[in-house]
Amino acid sequence: MNLDSESPFYRIVTEAVEDSGSYVCVGLDPDPAHLPEDFKKSGPQGIHDFCVEIIENTKKYAAAYKLNFAFFEAIGRSGWEILSSVRKAIPPNRLTIADAKRGDIGNSAKFYAKAIFDELDFHAATVNPYMGYDAVAPFIERPDKGAFILTLTSNKGAEDFQFIGGEKKLYQIVAEKARIWNELGNIGLVTGATRAGDLRRIRNIVPDLPFLVPGIGAQGGDLETVVENTMLNSAGGALINSSRGIIYASEEEDFAEAAGEAARNLKEQINTLLNYSDTIDQ
Amino acid sequence: MNLDSESPFYRIVTEAVEDSGSYVCVGLDPDPAHLPEDFKKSGPQGIHDFCVEIIENTKKYAAAYKLNFAFFEAIGRSGWEILSSVRKAIPPNRLTIADAKRGDIGNSAKFYAKAIFDELDFHAATVNPYMGYDAVAPFIERPDKGAFILTLTSNKGAEDFQFIGGEKKLYQIVAEKARIWNELGNIGLVTGATRAGDLRRIRNIVPDLPFLVPGIGAQGGDLETVVENTMLNSAGGALINSSRGIIYASEEEDFAEAAGEAARNLKEQINTLLNYSDTIDQ
Repeated sequence: MNLDSESPFYRIVTEAVEDSGSYVCVGLDPDPAHLPEDFKKSGPQGIHDFCVEIIENTKKYAAAYKLNFAFFEAIGRSGWEILSSVRKAIPPNRLTIADAKRGDIGNSAKFYAKAIFDELDFHAATVNPYMGYDAVAPFIERPDKGAFILTLTSNKGAEDFQFIGGEKKLYQIVAEKARIWNELGNIGLVTGATRAGDLRRIRNIVPDLPFLVPGIGAQGGDLETVVENTMLNSAGGALINSSRGIIYASEEEDFAEAAGEAARNLKEQINTLLNYSDTIDQ
Repeated sequence: MNLDSESPFYRIVTEAVEDSGSYVCVGLDPDPAHLPEDFKKSGPQGIHDFCVEIIENTKKYAAAYKLNFAFFEAIGRSGWEILSSVRKAIPPNRLTIADAKRGDIGNSAKFYAKAIFDELDFHAATVNPYMGYDAVAPFIERPDKGAFILTLTSNKGAEDFQFIGGEKKLYQIVAEKARIWNELGNIGLVTGATRAGDLRRIRNIVPDLPFLVPGIGAQGGDLETVVENTMLNSAGGALINSSRGIIYASEEEDFAEAAGEAARNLKEQINTLLNYSDTIDQ
């Protein structure tokens, strides 16, 4: 990873990677059904405590945390409070990503950006590009805040629309637009791990942009292929997200230690593939 | 509007139109900057009271209310509470639409649907199709709840991606998929008012689906063209949304009466264009 050092946002990303010696992003998708019994019983507070323990045990091995808003919104009235409190439990020098996949325009988009960047103090948000530039603009107006634009996703439904087009597919055109829109150096792309050839095509369009890569592990993406096609020989580099593989590494009492262990393993696997040996197993 | 009467969701839509004698959808996008002074001063409570007064004064003239989640989320901690309370102020026999433009997959999408349909008790949600079927599925699983899928939007940025493709554009393929996915009769399409020829093309693909049409007035869409291309000679019909044109019809103390007047005018204009004379000006 060798992001443009003139960009305040990219400096935050780079410092998070350097401080942790890791390219791992931990996805916090706290589904009550998968929490250990004690946490299940205590409702919203249990979800909060679960997330905080995961953070505590993974922070040595993770550069970034991605909080999936759906799981916090489903809590109801206290969801916002818990989201805000979990956000605060993330240590400095870690990148914080609001995985809200917002995609609206005008004032609505501005208000979403305000909620995510100001009220909740995230560094970055995931953004859905369907509505075009207007949907992305409010998230890339400030040099120290950024957007990861959904480009190619790892789910089966990705095939419904993302591959539409002739020689150039929708996802490639999204990547091209992202490159053009990246005037302040604060755009990254969400690129699912499950399609190796397409990852390479995107990387060729935007050699310098950071990727956020979900879909390894449970969703079937192969880590080696991902590293090869998005990180090796690329200035942009990637943050490799794991959600279930880390936070539900164990669903018993030892979940926090198991999460730490899983994050550490993923960190080491990536670093080995990158020959990033000097930072392995700090 | 002559929606499939076998569908519980379409029956809700039809009853809302019949009970109000109107095709108007009031968009509640409460921007603090545009509230009358007294309401501005009282913070979140002011936003709540503003929305409730708008509902009270427009309910005779509106079939539906569309609550724009961005504006409520930007309130912060009490946003959810206010959103929930405003939702409850909408009378029965009116369609309630959560304009959250959600677009996520798997468990995340399920949790968003749960929040919108169960916690907040909306009838419908707007959904972003970029991630494909997986993003829509949780919103169309229940026959009495529905999704309005973003298809063609009224903003300038719509041109960035929605027109990609050869003979068939992305927005047309979205409409075709919607037709296929509509097994339970609970899908509608969001189709911006600003592009008449394209509205006709979408209508030809899905003659039977209801449209939700933003973009008249402030955004420049022409009502007559919209009615002609989406409502006349179509079983599907449309709900015509107006946000700013109604809720900021006046920004002074008389805002509520002005909103009522604007909603009534819009209702009458649409009904005149439809020759829906028996229900005009009840």
